[in-house]
Amino acid sequence: MATIAQRAAAEGLGSAFLLATVVGSGIMAAKLAGGNGAIALLCNTLPTGAILVVLILTFGPISGAHFNPVVSTALVFRRELPVSVAAIYIVAQVLGGILGVLAAHAMFELPIWQVSMTIRTGPGQWFAEAVATFGLLLTIFGVSARSPGAIPYAVGLYITAAYWFTASTSFANPAVTIARALSDTFAGIAPAGVIAFIAAQLAGAAVAVPLARWLWR
Amino acid sequence: MATIAQRAAAEGLGSAFLLATVVGSGIMAAKLAGGNGAIALLCNTLPTGAILVVLILTFGPISGAHFNPVVSTALVFRRELPVSVAAIYIVAQVLGGILGVLAAHAMFELPIWQVSMTIRTGPGQWFAEAVATFGLLLTIFGVSARSPGAIPYAVGLYITAAYWFTASTSFANPAVTIARALSDTFAGIAPAGVIAFIAAQLAGAAVAVPLARWLWR
Amino acid sequence: MATIAQRAAAEGLGSAFLLATVVGSGIMAAKLAGGNGAIALLCNTLPTGAILVVLILTFGPISGAHFNPVVSTALVFRRELPVSVAAIYIVAQVLGGILGVLAAHAMFELPIWQVSMTIRTGPGQWFAEAVATFGLLLTIFGVSARSPGAIPYAVGLYITAAYWFTASTSFANPAVTIARALSDTFAGIAPAGVIAFIAAQLAGAAVAVPLARWLWR
Amino acid sequence: MATIAQRAAAEGLGSAFLLATVVGSGIMAAKLAGGNGAIALLCNTLPTGAILVVLILTFGPISGAHFNPVVSTALVFRRELPVSVAAIYIVAQVLGGILGVLAAHAMFELPIWQVSMTIRTGPGQWFAEAVATFGLLLTIFGVSARSPGAIPYAVGLYITAAYWFTASTSFANPAVTIARALSDTFAGIAPAGVIAFIAAQLAGAAVAVPLARWLWR
Repeated sequence: MATIAQRAAAEGLGSAFLLATVVGSGIMAAKLAGGNGAIALLCNTLPTGAILVVLILTFGPISGAHFNPVVSTALVFRRELPVSVAAIYIVAQVLGGILGVLAAHAMFELPIWQVSMTIRTGPGQWFAEAVATFGLLLTIFGVSARSPGAIPYAVGLYITAAYWFTASTSFANPAVTIARALSDTFAGIAPAGVIAFIAAQLAGAAVAVPLARWLWR
Repeated sequence: MATIAQRAAAEGLGSAFLLATVVGSGIMAAKLAGGNGAIALLCNTLPTGAILVVLILTFGPISGAHFNPVVSTALVFRRELPVSVAAIYIVAQVLGGILGVLAAHAMFELPIWQVSMTIRTGPGQWFAEAVATFGLLLTIFGVSARSPGAIPYAVGLYITAAYWFTASTSFANPAVTIARALSDTFAGIAPAGVIAFIAAQLAGAAVAVPLARWLWR
Repeated sequence: MATIAQRAAAEGLGSAFLLATVVGSGIMAAKLAGGNGAIALLCNTLPTGAILVVLILTFGPISGAHFNPVVSTALVFRRELPVSVAAIYIVAQVLGGILGVLAAHAMFELPIWQVSMTIRTGPGQWFAEAVATFGLLLTIFGVSARSPGAIPYAVGLYITAAYWFTASTSFANPAVTIARALSDTFAGIAPAGVIAFIAAQLAGAAVAVPLARWLWR
Repeated sequence: MATIAQRAAAEGLGSAFLLATVVGSGIMAAKLAGGNGAIALLCNTLPTGAILVVLILTFGPISGAHFNPVVSTALVFRRELPVSVAAIYIVAQVLGGILGVLAAHAMFELPIWQVSMTIRTGPGQWFAEAVATFGLLLTIFGVSARSPGAIPYAVGLYITAAYWFTASTSFANPAVTIARALSDTFAGIAPAGVIAFIAAQLAGAAVAVPLARWLWR
């Protein structure tokens, strides 16, 4: 059993690499795509899906590889994670995510501290965030119930799909949402939109948790 | 063993996410692809293949994860599913599929109810639907006979390929065909073409079922 | 144990779907790619790699899923396949491959019988075919020696890579080479180039077989 | 247990195929991409990620499939590889990598011996190389600690992501860096930049090794 320090480090490191990938690949993709938005989003999607598989394989045995406050919170409601551990996880996820964004900026020699000006708002995107988070939690609870070894692949592929089937490109993660507010690049979200996105994510989770309880016993 | 309500819910939810992905990613891809049809179709294909893997991993242990009336019907002929359960599954698949299409429209802030005007017809496309369904059933029966754990990956990869090797982009599923008639977006099919597509799918299945029985004992 | 009729059918069906995918996805990709050769080749590569995984999962337990006369021949030299069975396999592979090409043409409503006019020749491409086949056989022998369950994924991913790292787009298969001579579409090869390609493939195999024998015991 | 000759051959062959893929797919991608840098890099990324999975599956049981002096060196510090074996591995990796570059040039009928003129330098890229190597080692140590069977997929997917989230496209490997200096094509790096890249890679490893020791017991 890993210590709480190891577990927090795993959550922080994993969140950092996740955000470095989301933001870094967005910068690279937008720079190279020549204005074609689909190519840019594809070259943002594939690295994100790929790194999620890797990070869950790498850090899953230590911390469970949540990298997502909604997941940690849902596990509290399922009585699978003590609330004190969840609190530590969430701090690590947010700080790790921000660190990853800063690292991406440093790698691409951009200003380290930025604030996004990309407006992401409106009922369509809020509904999309709720759907995306709802589906993510069903995936996690369903697959871990019967095929836990497939969780890394399921989550990576779920996000690969959700980038495209949601109008918001599927943040589905409050730590990711907060961290992406600190990047005025392809993957950014203006701070004014953050609270509504997180509220929508929690709403999706609030439907998924009881439904999953009924579906898997 | 899951109850029939759980199984019907799994078929409905899975079909809803499948259709939300097919239609939603089609909308996103067409919007961003700048008129390049191959990029649009690629960005429609990859999410669809990915979500199929996820949905079969997630819902397979509950309902078998058919999401497809042809599959449920074929299993009746193989005496692996009672006809009464198949009937419930098919209703859930069609209703779930329609719900997924409506959800995609809502996420992208498009009119909820639409009717496709995309003509899909002709002997080439009908033959393609028969071939696509024939191959899908051989895949399902062959892989489940020897490597059932690989079924999610096999089906996702099969559809990834079939989007491109068939002239119809491989519907291969009556519930999908019906639901896509209700979307006047990239993935739509005008209602006039639905019956012939479904007939072709059943023809492909009618060849696959006896052939599979002979091939795998 | 499957009968020889079942095994030949598996080789023929698999080769047919393989060629239908190579040729069909080439037609679709070239039609939609708007003249961008990289997009066209990518949309030809991904379906081919995907269907190989599927076909090996599906038909592997019946026939071994060679779909390739070089593989069957190499197994004769390794004393893992009787020469009489190899002969039947090779006939099934070539006939199945041709059937797949014709089916692709039918699906896309093109003339059923065609002869390619795409010149593929020169020492670079011959060397590429030898390298591609050499690598394919090392992959098959190496992976089947230690992780036979990973063979479908290894072969699909190998061909995905080899499409791009070889100057010939990696035919690496005499049945594929012959069948593709019968399609004057994206994936075609003019008949004049067929013999040299097959000779290069056999040369690559002639190096791989003894090397593999030394490497894995 | 494989002999040292077999192990060196596995490292050399694997490194050769890795470099042939990196350089060869770069040539093909750049030739076909019509000037779109994102498409070119995507068609360089996917084959590289794919071949890594294949090569680790194929050669892993013989030599461990390092193909990377940083990995071999790190294993010496972890007391999992004798220094004498590591020295042989590194020679095989560098020579194999160079051989692979020459083979790619031969396949595409380019001058066999070339020197890159692509300047890759600056603190952003050096930091990126350190991050990329740091993440690669965490991936290898973490995944091999708990899910060794997933290592081929984890490494392939890690590099797929790292191509995009790092400003340097993630060399993360001194043998790859040296070999790519010998190709004046898409994947090349001017010799003047090689030493700094390798230093950055070693710096990333110097952080990863003790961190991994703490994280996984």
